[in-house]
Order: sequence, then C-alpha cells, then structure tokens
Amino acid sequence: MKAVLLSQAPGVVILDITHAIAPQDIQDGAIILERAIRIMPAGTIHVAVVDPGVGSERRILLARINNQLVICPDNGLITWAWRRLGGGKAAELAWRPAGNISDTFHGRDIMAPAAARLAMGARPSTLGRVSVEPILLDLFPAEPGDREGVIVHIDHFGNATTNFPAEALAGLTIASIRVGQWVLGPVRKTYADAAPGQPLALIGSSGLMEIAVRNGSAAGDLRLRIGDRVSLQLTTDH
Amino acid sequence: MKAVLLSQAPGVVILDITHAIAPQDIQDGAIILERAIRIMPAGTIHVAVVDPGVGSERRILLARINNQLVICPDNGLITWAWRRLGGGKAAELAWRPAGNISDTFHGRDIMAPAAARLAMGARPSTLGRVSVEPILLDLFPAEPGDREGVIVHIDHFGNATTNFPAEALAGLTIASIRVGQWVLGPVRKTYADAAPGQPLALIGSSGLMEIAVRNGSAAGDLRLRIGDRVSLQLTTDH
Amino acid sequence: MKAVLLSQAPGVVILDITHAIAPQDIQDGAIILERAIRIMPAGTIHVAVVDPGVGSERRILLARINNQLVICPDNGLITWAWRRLGGGKAAELAWRPAGNISDTFHGRDIMAPAAARLAMGARPSTLGRVSVEPILLDLFPAEPGDREGVIVHIDHFGNATTNFPAEALAGLTIASIRVGQWVLGPVRKTYADAAPGQPLALIGSSGLMEIAVRNGSAAGDLRLRIGDRVSLQLTTDH
Repeated sequence: MKAVLLSQAPGVVILDITHAIAPQDIQDGAIILERAIRIMPAGTIHVAVVDPGVGSERRILLARINNQLVICPDNGLITWAWRRLGGGKAAELAWRPAGNISDTFHGRDIMAPAAARLAMGARPSTLGRVSVEPILLDLFPAEPGDREGVIVHIDHFGNATTNFPAEALAGLTIASIRVGQWVLGPVRKTYADAAPGQPLALIGSSGLMEIAVRNGSAAGDLRLRIGDRVSLQLTTDH
Repeated sequence: MKAVLLSQAPGVVILDITHAIAPQDIQDGAIILERAIRIMPAGTIHVAVVDPGVGSERRILLARINNQLVICPDNGLITWAWRRLGGGKAAELAWRPAGNISDTFHGRDIMAPAAARLAMGARPSTLGRVSVEPILLDLFPAEPGDREGVIVHIDHFGNATTNFPAEALAGLTIASIRVGQWVLGPVRKTYADAAPGQPLALIGSSGLMEIAVRNGSAAGDLRLRIGDRVSLQLTTDH
Repeated sequence: MKAVLLSQAPGVVILDITHAIAPQDIQDGAIILERAIRIMPAGTIHVAVVDPGVGSERRILLARINNQLVICPDNGLITWAWRRLGGGKAAELAWRPAGNISDTFHGRDIMAPAAARLAMGARPSTLGRVSVEPILLDLFPAEPGDREGVIVHIDHFGNATTNFPAEALAGLTIASIRVGQWVLGPVRKTYADAAPGQPLALIGSSGLMEIAVRNGSAAGDLRLRIGDRVSLQLTTDH
C-alpha cells in the first residue's frame, strides 16, 4: 500500500498508525481508527484495512468524519468513529482504478489508489456520490445513564480499555468499579494513585475509562479479556 | 541505518518494508524482497540486510532489477527477485566508506552509506564495476509443468504461500491441491469462496498460490510449515 | 505523538527508533536512547517516553547531549547517554502547552508539543531554564580497570549486550570471558570467528562487548538474562 501511495502521490506524508490489529479483528480496528481520527489534523486521509470480506460483495466506504476522510471496508470498522465523534457522512466508494484488481487485497489495489487520488487533489464526489448508511457493530460507547459496559481493547501495557467515555461518567459519584471478581474503588486520576502492583480504574489518554495495574499488566494480573463485563456502583446505590 | 541515511542523504524518503524477518532467515527475506521490488517505483534503492556472514569474506551485491537498485549481501537473499522478475544485472559493491567499519553491522556501515551515495546521485558504476553471478538459493519459483512445490512463506494471517506463481498454473485444469493430509479442491478466486473455517487454495496478492483458511489461520489450523510439500492433481491425471 | 508532531510542526521528519521497549523497562530504554543519540545527526530532537511515573511529581528533562536535544521523563532514562557520551547539560522542562493535559500520557500532551516547538525554531531556553542534575540509574558502563560487568540488553537476535564498552577493554590481554557457567575465550572480531552453533564474545555494533552464538541465540541457547554477571579473566591473572 505504501508503494502505491509513493508511486501515485509523490511527496505525500505517510503515517503508520498500527500493523498490530489481530487478523479479522474488526472491533479492535474500529477502536484504534477512532483514536486516529480524533487526533489527526484536518484534511488527513485515512486508509483502514481490516477486511475479511475482501473479494465478496461488501462495499467500500468513503466517509467524512471530524474534517478528515476515511476509506475502509463497510464491515463495521467505522463504528467507533461514527458513534463517538459524530457528524459523519458516508458514500460508497464507487471508483475503481484501471488495470488488474486482485480479489484478495483491495487495500493495495483499490483503497490506496483512491487515497492517492484524494491526496493529489481529487474531489471526494468524483470517487463516490451515493450516500449510504454504514454497517455498524453492536458494540459502541456507553452513554450517560449506562451502568454496565465491557472491555473493548487491551493495549501494549496490558491496560484494559472499557467502553465508558469520560462524558458518560460526568456528574456521577462512583463508589466502585467492578470487573469480574474485582472491586476497584472509584475512578482515580493517574497510575500513581495506586500502590505498585495494585489495580485501579482511571480515564485513559483516549478519554475512555480503563482498568490498569500500577507497574503491572491488568490483562495479565487480573486475567481480563476483551468482552468482560464492567459495572459501575454509585454511592446512591443500596 | 536510518540515521546514516538521514545524515548522508538529507531529504531522502525512507520506507520500512519489514523488520519481522526471523534472524538468519535468508529464504524468507528473499521472498519479501521480491515483493518489494515487484511493486516499488522505478528508481527505488533497496537495502536488504539478512546477513549472518557479516565480517567474513562474503561479497556485497549491487544489482539492478526491474529498474531499481538493490544492495544486499551475496548470500542468496536476491534469489527470488533474480529468478522471478528476471533481467537482473549484478556487480560486486567494491566501494567502502572512509572511517571505521564494524565487523558486525555492514548494513549500517557499508550498505546504508552506499545507498545514501546513490540517493544523492552517484552513478552505480562508481560503486561497483565487476559483473558477478549472484549466489542463489536452491529454492525458487515453480515453472510451468511443475506438479510439485513447497510452502515458502507464512504471513501475519497464517496464510501459507507456495512457490507456484499464477503463470505456472495458467492453462491447467486443476482438480485438487494437496498439502500434507489435506485435499483442497481447485484454486478459488477469493477467501469468501470457502465457508468460514474451511481451507482453500487461491492466488494471493503477490501472484503466488497460497493456502488459507477463511477467517482462520492455515498455518495454525492445518499445522502447515515452511518447507511442507504441495502438489497439483490435474483433471487429466488418473 | 506523531499526530501532534505533524499538526504542530508541519514538514518535520519523524523517525521511529523503536516501540519494542518492554513496559516500564527504563533500563532497556536508556540503552537504546544512547545508541540513537550516538548516531543521529546534530540538531536531532529526541522524545523518549518510558514513563511509569506519569501523572506524579516526577520532572521532565530537556537535555543537550552530543549536539542533540533530548526530552524525556527524569527517571533514569537518560543514564546511559549521560554517562557514556558525556558533556551533557540538563534543564527541567518547565513549559506546558495551553489546554487539556492528561494525567496518563505526557508523551503526547507535553513532550511531543515541546518537541514540535523546538522543531519550529523555539530556543531551548524558552522551555526550561533551571539547570538540574538528572536522576541516574545505578547501572552504567564499565570503566577501564573493571573486571566485573553485567548483561544490560538482549536484542532481536538473542545477542546479549554487556556493559563493557570497547574503550574499557583497550590494552587488556583477555584470556577468557565468563558468563554463568560458560567460558568463552578471548574477544573475537566477528560472528564468523566461531563455528556455527558456538558461543563467542565480540564488540557489537554499538561499541559494547556482547555475547553471541553464531547462527543462534545467546539468550536462548545459553539461557542468559539481563542482569547476569560477566567477568574478564586476563592472561596475567593466576
């Protein structure tokens, strides 16, 4: 894909976000894609490829979210950005490059060439015009009032990200966070608010509540996994 | 190596292809190098370092393949590009930079400085003039008429790439592909042509036949390894 | 962090040195940071983040070493560069960007914005003026006369780097290197000076003595770990 971009959009700045999404893991890709769109500068063109349906009839999306453009398969990969950042618009990427297109790697053969055209100044409307509703995964950010959530991502440090955004917790007086057999107390400010080796809940750098172990690995030490349930107990609960 | 390139060829565009070749694995490096040379733009300068013989008498190559330049140890690393892309020419890289050259990292101390000179406009003939025959590994692409091949690479998804290029299969009516105890039927078009969890053979995005499991890992699910034999059974076989 | 740099310092060249430091492993980060500062061009701005104390009262350093600038937490991460390259000066990075600063990711919220300002031409004295003594780890390079050292880093190949720099060995006639139960003979010149599968000691590409196994993994084959003791026996020893 980078070879295509360098060939067809000379001088473009390419930034690798990650190549560490597990094969087929659309949900994890959706979490990471939202983080990238949240922070990258206006005008960025994202190409996101977690694409187990390549070669089938699945559509390719060309979306605009947060003043950025996103090209990705229409398989739920856009869910988290669509739900959390809001205000998105999506079209089907109808454009196809001339020449051979493989049935196994549309990231290289369709999406990267489309991104190169956009980078060279093509208007999005020349690549896709029909407005569509993206396919969305069932899992999405908790909303104010939700008391039950889940772990949606495990990072390099073993921190377990939940689907509770800070804004869903605003105004609540939380007595404790529960995950599996663990009761973690209220939401802390930073890792140093726990003793070394002790677990805690805090708002992580992407604005989601996460479960961590100070100087340790929550995933390893607490045996947490994606999909594990997380619940809030408020001080007003009896 | 990148520090050397940035110092000695300011403004050069550096593209990491991979750092995930297993230590000493010249064959795997050769497969990946061919993929890079196949798709990168004309004029690209490749530096490929899988170099267990560093510090010994092994030569360093300066080759021209597919309108690109390649600097690499002469230990077979160029095999796949040389055989599959054809038309290559090779010289011994005779040039050495002034100053200290370690005995353990010629990628940094010789190859990257040579690439920097080429990037700054030096003519290849000033770095190496004597034409040489590169050392080639025994393993190379299957040719038309071959019925027996092997698995040459396992990728991030667990797909098992064989040494059958699409062109070696052209015109054949294949009844089944056999690998180990598995009989996979004919070559399919894309992953979605198999049921989830089922194995299939198809032409991968690098133009080689590969063994995959839809939404799974062929290497894991079928216990395939590099070197495993793969055979074609034609409909005309009895 | 890269998104911040691209937004706030457009056109800057970003070079990833590594994302493979183990969580919390300040010592390993310190070894790698020294290697980067040793070889990068003058004027490079380094941002090094191994930061288990983020959100606590730990300081952030702005240092000048080897004609380069370094921004990192004041937790020992600078030890190896400070000791081995010498001549460093350090201030506390007092500057903070306007707006929200998380308590969990100062690399993104303070250090990358500070690096962007420097890259855009801000003078270091506008970001930090008070000279400080950096916190240093206990472990640092062996000095001439030292006979006992330790393994400080295991690389991708399984080579075990010791804390003996070449200059601490200059002029010595070493009869043998001992590590654990192994006696390795004198320091060799390159990997090919041992038979395949045999262990050896040599000066690695970063100028430190390392223990390697030709075509093998010293860490795996000899069961070496960071912290293992290494000793020199001289020919004059009895």
